[in-house]
Amino acid sequence: MALKAKVLYDFHSENQGEISITENELVTLFSEEELEGWLEGENSRGETGLFPASYVEIIRDHITTNTNNNSFSSPKTRAVPATQSAQRGLGAGSGGSSFNTSQGSDDDWDDDWDEGSAAADVPRGLGSSPPLYPVTTSLPGRRGSSQQAKGSATVGRNLNRFSTFVKSGGEAFLLGEASAFVRDGDRICVVMGKHGPEWQEDPYPFTCTIDDPTKQTKFKGMKSYMSYGLTPTHTSVQVNRRYKHFDWLYARLVERFPVISVPHLPEKQATGRFEEDFISKRRKGLIWWMNHMSSHPVLARCDVFQHFLTCGADEKAWKQGKRKAERDELVGANFFLTISTPAVPLDLQEVESKIEGFKTFTRKMDENIVVVNATINEFARKQMAGFKKEYQKVGQSFRILAQAFELDQQAYSVGLNKAIAYTGEAYDAVGDYFAEQPRHDLDPISDLLDLYRGHLSNFPDIIHVQKGALTKVKDCSKQETELHDRCNIISCATLAEIQHFHRTRVRDFRLQMQQHLRQQIGFFQKITAKLEDALQRYEDDR
Amino acid sequence: MALKAKVLYDFHSENQGEISITENELVTLFSEEELEGWLEGENSRGETGLFPASYVEIIRDHITTNTNNNSFSSPKTRAVPATQSAQRGLGAGSGGSSFNTSQGSDDDWDDDWDEGSAAADVPRGLGSSPPLYPVTTSLPGRRGSSQQAKGSATVGRNLNRFSTFVKSGGEAFLLGEASAFVRDGDRICVVMGKHGPEWQEDPYPFTCTIDDPTKQTKFKGMKSYMSYGLTPTHTSVQVNRRYKHFDWLYARLVERFPVISVPHLPEKQATGRFEEDFISKRRKGLIWWMNHMSSHPVLARCDVFQHFLTCGADEKAWKQGKRKAERDELVGANFFLTISTPAVPLDLQEVESKIEGFKTFTRKMDENIVVVNATINEFARKQMAGFKKEYQKVGQSFRILAQAFELDQQAYSVGLNKAIAYTGEAYDAVGDYFAEQPRHDLDPISDLLDLYRGHLSNFPDIIHVQKGALTKVKDCSKQETELHDRCNIISCATLAEIQHFHRTRVRDFRLQMQQHLRQQIGFFQKITAKLEDALQRYEDDR
Repeated sequence: MALKAKVLYDFHSENQGEISITENELVTLFSEEELEGWLEGENSRGETGLFPASYVEIIRDHITTNTNNNSFSSPKTRAVPATQSAQRGLGAGSGGSSFNTSQGSDDDWDDDWDEGSAAADVPRGLGSSPPLYPVTTSLPGRRGSSQQAKGSATVGRNLNRFSTFVKSGGEAFLLGEASAFVRDGDRICVVMGKHGPEWQEDPYPFTCTIDDPTKQTKFKGMKSYMSYGLTPTHTSVQVNRRYKHFDWLYARLVERFPVISVPHLPEKQATGRFEEDFISKRRKGLIWWMNHMSSHPVLARCDVFQHFLTCGADEKAWKQGKRKAERDELVGANFFLTISTPAVPLDLQEVESKIEGFKTFTRKMDENIVVVNATINEFARKQMAGFKKEYQKVGQSFRILAQAFELDQQAYSVGLNKAIAYTGEAYDAVGDYFAEQPRHDLDPISDLLDLYRGHLSNFPDIIHVQKGALTKVKDCSKQETELHDRCNIISCATLAEIQHFHRTRVRDFRLQMQQHLRQQIGFFQKITAKLEDALQRYEDDR
Repeated sequence: MALKAKVLYDFHSENQGEISITENELVTLFSEEELEGWLEGENSRGETGLFPASYVEIIRDHITTNTNNNSFSSPKTRAVPATQSAQRGLGAGSGGSSFNTSQGSDDDWDDDWDEGSAAADVPRGLGSSPPLYPVTTSLPGRRGSSQQAKGSATVGRNLNRFSTFVKSGGEAFLLGEASAFVRDGDRICVVMGKHGPEWQEDPYPFTCTIDDPTKQTKFKGMKSYMSYGLTPTHTSVQVNRRYKHFDWLYARLVERFPVISVPHLPEKQATGRFEEDFISKRRKGLIWWMNHMSSHPVLARCDVFQHFLTCGADEKAWKQGKRKAERDELVGANFFLTISTPAVPLDLQEVESKIEGFKTFTRKMDENIVVVNATINEFARKQMAGFKKEYQKVGQSFRILAQAFELDQQAYSVGLNKAIAYTGEAYDAVGDYFAEQPRHDLDPISDLLDLYRGHLSNFPDIIHVQKGALTKVKDCSKQETELHDRCNIISCATLAEIQHFHRTRVRDFRLQMQQHLRQQIGFFQKITAKLEDALQRYEDDR
């Protein structure tokens, strides 16, 4: 059966290769695969060509699915893998389909462990509990069926239905459309700290180690994958996870927390994923990721992450937790329902100025770490090639000096000849040290910068949500206390997240710079020791 | 009056631009200045063009002067300044003119200190004591007037009158033509050491320091020159010398000692001789030179060097010593008269094999130090440009990271911002250290290699003298005991000089390599200290 999609909005073709489509029209898709946000298909007039994927919903077994999992992410996302930035852009309710699109390119998801869990792929809309805030409620044609917010009489909706403010659930929450049962355990506190709103600290902080991954096979060796042993300190029990599980978790977190910067996973890679370099790089990336996860007061405590960290080899338990997470009601707009704010509401003007300052900060930081990253990568390359070569050329030249001198084998010459030859070898070794070193003290900085570029690419969307709320509040009359309260909640959460970003940034960069300098010091001491060793040969010989 | 020259040998022009000249013909010179061993002039047939400078004697105030101060030096001399290799090629008796030609391009010789000493420029042939072995005695037309050697009946003369063997006086000595009064104090002993013949050690060894030169002026500031304060340890009295005095001394030593490798002076330079870099380089070169002079058992003790080292500001005493040196009879062939050999004569075959081995050694050493020199000069260049730049780019990138971070001025950020900025500065400093370093540990090696390239360019001539003697002895009948004895003297002296070369080489290279390594160690320690300093900034801030 040909794949069909329902057109959500009019689109007028402007360029060759595009076709015009009209709202409510049914189009035939040639493939489900998007190409940079475009789909190819045939419209009802028999024209074939491209149209924006976000303008249609795919019709699948009578279920419509919004294909819009690509990005209203900011131009800042250039450094971020396309699939990750796409996930970032995901609003609430599209869990199932985001999940579909985030797999396949790397690990295989369709293994025995997950077989029979097809229910997870069915959007919540058909599950036992109807979604409180499915993305489709924001579609103009269907809005009538959703609860009408109190504030909607005076406060208009955003015209851009794909703005992050709308997609994240920020608008719905602000307009009072969010509603869910919030247990005490789900409550997230923002407290007033010395530097402004902060996430309340995790009373039971933990860390998590990641072992070297092991290669596992299944289907009698026909398929293989890498398995990571994770051991969280609060259970001390190792669990085994694959990259695709991280990926699944990531997708859950992104939809769950609209104004929290979920750290990006290390890059996917289609080929060579069993190669040593890649495995080592991915592991280091996952360690950084885990480190950011477990040190975030909100992320670290959330159910889905805890399930991921603690669920053992019991398949049934895993599947239960997995389904529970996929049906979690407290996603998107409802996330804001879980937030408790400090007693005194924030001054909105002050918030605005802080947010503006942070925007400037992130822009500058993003610009500058691009330069830093390019420089240290170039420096690494130079050390591995040029520096090594130069030291080894000197080593070689000392060796040929020794070779000439060896033609004189008088007793008093021999010691010098050997010492000079040894000096040549010492220089060779120094060359090797230079080539080895970047792995130890430049690559980690580069990894850190990558992680932060991921965060920086998250923040435009986060800021967008807060700004959307602020704009709405400014537009409305003074009496809208509840609107103000809800805006205060969004602002508190945003500022708490910004504060957390700064804290983490200062901690990470301090540690990494110290680590870098310690490594460099060790490196130069190693060179010194080698040269002292060479020097000793001359003195032994006296 | 046009400058004339008397033709010593027939020369048949073979190329365009050359003219043929005939023995005893008078030719008119257009200039006294040689161009790579050629003079330009007009022959008696009115043809004008080039002819070899060594084939004529310039007639100056009724005095004929052999202009042959250019070189039959080996192809090995390529690295040596032309004037120095020319001086090396000088035989006995041409002191005055060699002296004339070795000046002018660098220091001015014609100053008050030497005014009125024109007598020194008059060849010894016209002095009060007739020369025992002027170079002209070897000219075919005039040989009749010199003493006929006993051996000359059975042993033929070399056909190539410009071979080093002939020019050095080696042939004349071997043929028994040398004769001079040798005082006990002039006697030079070759003793049999553990490794073969050696120069007897100087019983009163000394060293000599060279102060930073000072700029002196004369003629009311119209002329200026650099004066070096020399303080030999055996007198502890400082004397002041100019480069031209070194140059003069060098010329004396070269003619005095046919089989001793007189260290080459640091290079001459026509312009920029008051520039700091040049002065510093020359001073270092002179220190090396002085070091080689004072550690050579024969050179260190010889009269002319002692006069140079000890004669104070008394002009009269200086001039007396200067003239005495220029009229020294124990030059060239007569030098060999001063040598005492060990009681047991050397086995000539063994000598031949040793000399062959040494020839191979010098060739290899010369080849390889060219490579070493090129490599370390390139390495120095890389450190001063590329390495410095790379470290400073990293420094710069850390500084711009700090600049971005400085946009966040929360209390807990400030320390990190400062520490990162300081790390940037530390990297800048490391870049500067790299640029500074080659002066301390690569340039000295390069200077040493230059000095040794000078020695290596001396040895082909030295070996030539010994080989010439050996060939003569092989050609003659067994009964020629005196010829054998004299060949033994030449062989002993040559092997003693080779032994001295090896000793000095092992000493110098050991010291210099140690010095290099110590400097490198200090350098890397300095970097380590700087980075430790930077690291401290992060820890202070906790």
